[in-house]
Amino acid sequence: MHLLIIGGSDAGISAALRARELDPSVETTVVVADAFPNFSICGLPFYLSGEVGDYRNLAHRTAADIEREGISLLLDHTAQAVDPQAKTVAVVGQDGQAQTLSYDRLVIGTGAVSAQPRIEGLDLPGVYPMRWMRDAFAVYDHLTERGPQSAVVIGGGYIGMEMADGLTLRGLDVTVVEYFDTVLTTVDPVLGQVVREELEGHGVHVTTGTAVARIEAQGDRLVVSGTKDLCIEADLVVYATGVRPETALARTAGVKMGEWGAIRVNRKMETNVDDVYAAGDCVETYHRLLDRYTFMPLGTTAHKQGRVAGENAVGGDAEYAGSLGTQVVKVFDLVVARTGLRDVEASEAGFAPLTVELETWDHKVYYPGAHKMRVCVTGDCETGRLLGAQMIGRRGTEVSKRIDIFAAALFHGMAVDGLSDLDLSYTPPLSSPWDPVQMAAQAWGKTLNPGA
Amino acid sequence: MHLLIIGGSDAGISAALRARELDPSVETTVVVADAFPNFSICGLPFYLSGEVGDYRNLAHRTAADIEREGISLLLDHTAQAVDPQAKTVAVVGQDGQAQTLSYDRLVIGTGAVSAQPRIEGLDLPGVYPMRWMRDAFAVYDHLTERGPQSAVVIGGGYIGMEMADGLTLRGLDVTVVEYFDTVLTTVDPVLGQVVREELEGHGVHVTTGTAVARIEAQGDRLVVSGTKDLCIEADLVVYATGVRPETALARTAGVKMGEWGAIRVNRKMETNVDDVYAAGDCVETYHRLLDRYTFMPLGTTAHKQGRVAGENAVGGDAEYAGSLGTQVVKVFDLVVARTGLRDVEASEAGFAPLTVELETWDHKVYYPGAHKMRVCVTGDCETGRLLGAQMIGRRGTEVSKRIDIFAAALFHGMAVDGLSDLDLSYTPPLSSPWDPVQMAAQAWGKTLNPGA
Repeated sequence: MHLLIIGGSDAGISAALRARELDPSVETTVVVADAFPNFSICGLPFYLSGEVGDYRNLAHRTAADIEREGISLLLDHTAQAVDPQAKTVAVVGQDGQAQTLSYDRLVIGTGAVSAQPRIEGLDLPGVYPMRWMRDAFAVYDHLTERGPQSAVVIGGGYIGMEMADGLTLRGLDVTVVEYFDTVLTTVDPVLGQVVREELEGHGVHVTTGTAVARIEAQGDRLVVSGTKDLCIEADLVVYATGVRPETALARTAGVKMGEWGAIRVNRKMETNVDDVYAAGDCVETYHRLLDRYTFMPLGTTAHKQGRVAGENAVGGDAEYAGSLGTQVVKVFDLVVARTGLRDVEASEAGFAPLTVELETWDHKVYYPGAHKMRVCVTGDCETGRLLGAQMIGRRGTEVSKRIDIFAAALFHGMAVDGLSDLDLSYTPPLSSPWDPVQMAAQAWGKTLNPGA
Repeated sequence: MHLLIIGGSDAGISAALRARELDPSVETTVVVADAFPNFSICGLPFYLSGEVGDYRNLAHRTAADIEREGISLLLDHTAQAVDPQAKTVAVVGQDGQAQTLSYDRLVIGTGAVSAQPRIEGLDLPGVYPMRWMRDAFAVYDHLTERGPQSAVVIGGGYIGMEMADGLTLRGLDVTVVEYFDTVLTTVDPVLGQVVREELEGHGVHVTTGTAVARIEAQGDRLVVSGTKDLCIEADLVVYATGVRPETALARTAGVKMGEWGAIRVNRKMETNVDDVYAAGDCVETYHRLLDRYTFMPLGTTAHKQGRVAGENAVGGDAEYAGSLGTQVVKVFDLVVARTGLRDVEASEAGFAPLTVELETWDHKVYYPGAHKMRVCVTGDCETGRLLGAQMIGRRGTEVSKRIDIFAAALFHGMAVDGLSDLDLSYTPPLSSPWDPVQMAAQAWGKTLNPGA
């Protein structure tokens, strides 16, 4: 039995590890397009900031670690086409050498690639997308060899926020340009505004509601221009304006795509083609609350889906439990997290949402070092069901793992009111007898039924 | 409708607030034995350490805050007896003045008192229990007026750990004496050993497996002696060796007690006497995993039970969802947490437990500031059900809210394996794509079925 996996990032390696864990007899090969299997691309902004000294530390596991698990790696090889009848995959090495690999089961984990925004001049020297190792190496070389003093970051999403943070830490003068009216549109504008203030407090210039139209070279410098008279000179431009699923290989196999342009899979991570599984950023993701598929490329999701694909590829019967859209990002000293549906998303999905925001302390205020945090709870007015939560606070206020309490509650379809029943931990230096998560849930209940 | 509440700590005030929230027309009176309604007695060690400058900051709410909610406070009054036929309670003020209060519904929240260990000399000057405000004031006066240089803390539980931490911070030379073989016996000995090392690393002397027999005055000093040739001289002795429920008032009402000597209640917080509810440290607590009642006095539980009692006292139909025994304590720079059942507790309860420990990093090790943490997962070998978890790590590793992820999973009766399905938040500075909680759950699965 030969398990062939195309893609050596989160989904592919997770599939390989899980398959070998469950069936040490299965021959497992992972084809990796570059020389960096199992690298944490989520860590690239921290490499560019200088916080990670050696990019090799970004490996979740080294190649040797992976091979020690009995997994064969075929590095620097790109898969070109799948023949699902012959059960073979044509691959080509960086040296141009072609070969044909056969499989009994195939897992496609080709990931996503940077979406190319409609901006002129993206191909100019000094302009880089930010997604893969090669992108980071290009920016790194630019930073170390040319010593840029200023940068424009196009896109105010997670990667844009981390790049603004990282390049500022490195000493550059940074401007973020975002198309929408606030940065970090994955959370409510009121929280996006807090993030903006954090950026500005660290000297980052923030321009929102602005579309970049073109980038032009002017001597050694770049000029970024667009709507609202946007015109910024900088030494470096990085863009991270979203991704699209990489599905070219899957198409050669006759794999069907979903409406988001990603590979259509079921919760077993099976495609429509026999013995072909797919997982990670190249597939549609089952959303547990919406009970439908969506495109939500995230490392956590890729790990989970890869694990399910690997288990099923060796005869298992696992099901992907679904995403809740849980996300967190650190921007300078601030941590911003979300899970589930925001008010607007819940409305679109046919719920009757109410969102209530509470500002409270992360722990008993009498104990030194308490910080205020903001918690937004979204619940359904008709059923009382919890739909989502957002949170923002200083580093150290356990925002990340507090959002996970909401995530665990959402996973089980809890009512907002039910959060008060959870037996959560308390000591004055770390929380309150009612954790902020529960205080916010209670505030939601009081808003729904004032003086009930 | 008059709601009378005896006891102004967590359970009593929670009951009053919830009653008034649901029915602003209900006349609500809280009888408080001292002048400190709604004080956070969990914060007393931090007052004595000097971290909390003014004891008044320990109030969750001020008396004025409470009265603003339409709640009447009768401070410095002790309830003596309940007449359940006449529906009255006899109370007496500190001035000796007696009065009789009538009620339609009564909530008893008389709390717990320090257990008196069988030690000679507990009544000597300079020897103090540690439970209530008056205890803390006595120790505070001793500290400020007599400037002790050394202290013995009898009892290595939560309060003992916090007192050792706090008195050390204040500059005293501290010795902890514990009867059992490790400190903090609420977690496994292997974690108790880590706590011991943390104490010793901060200069605290730790003596375990030792029973204190007597305390004697020797001039201005105290000599603490016991088994294993224990003989320590000190200027101050504090003991915190457990509590017993304060049930004298309830007994006058004909309220039945459970086998733990605490007030027997159902999940509606009703006693056997009509219109008499009870909540907090004076009652037996429903344990959600054991599906039976136990004695587990905790502030979080008191708040929840008080809320249920208050709701039902004004005609509601709430049920206490049950305790999981979730607890956390900070000892110097260490945070130790638990939820659910430990291996030994699970065995006693008839489960077939397996406990697996994992040491891992709190966040991706490539990002600066990563610390190792230890996670113990206990699950049932036959059903795969999660039974409990324990965790220890430095402050800042989000141990407290990570244990809460386990608590939320336990609440819903999840399988250990199911933890990998939770969509938890991840960014390299704060976690890993599989959170430590999930890595530990996976380690449990691999131990149960090696090379499955």
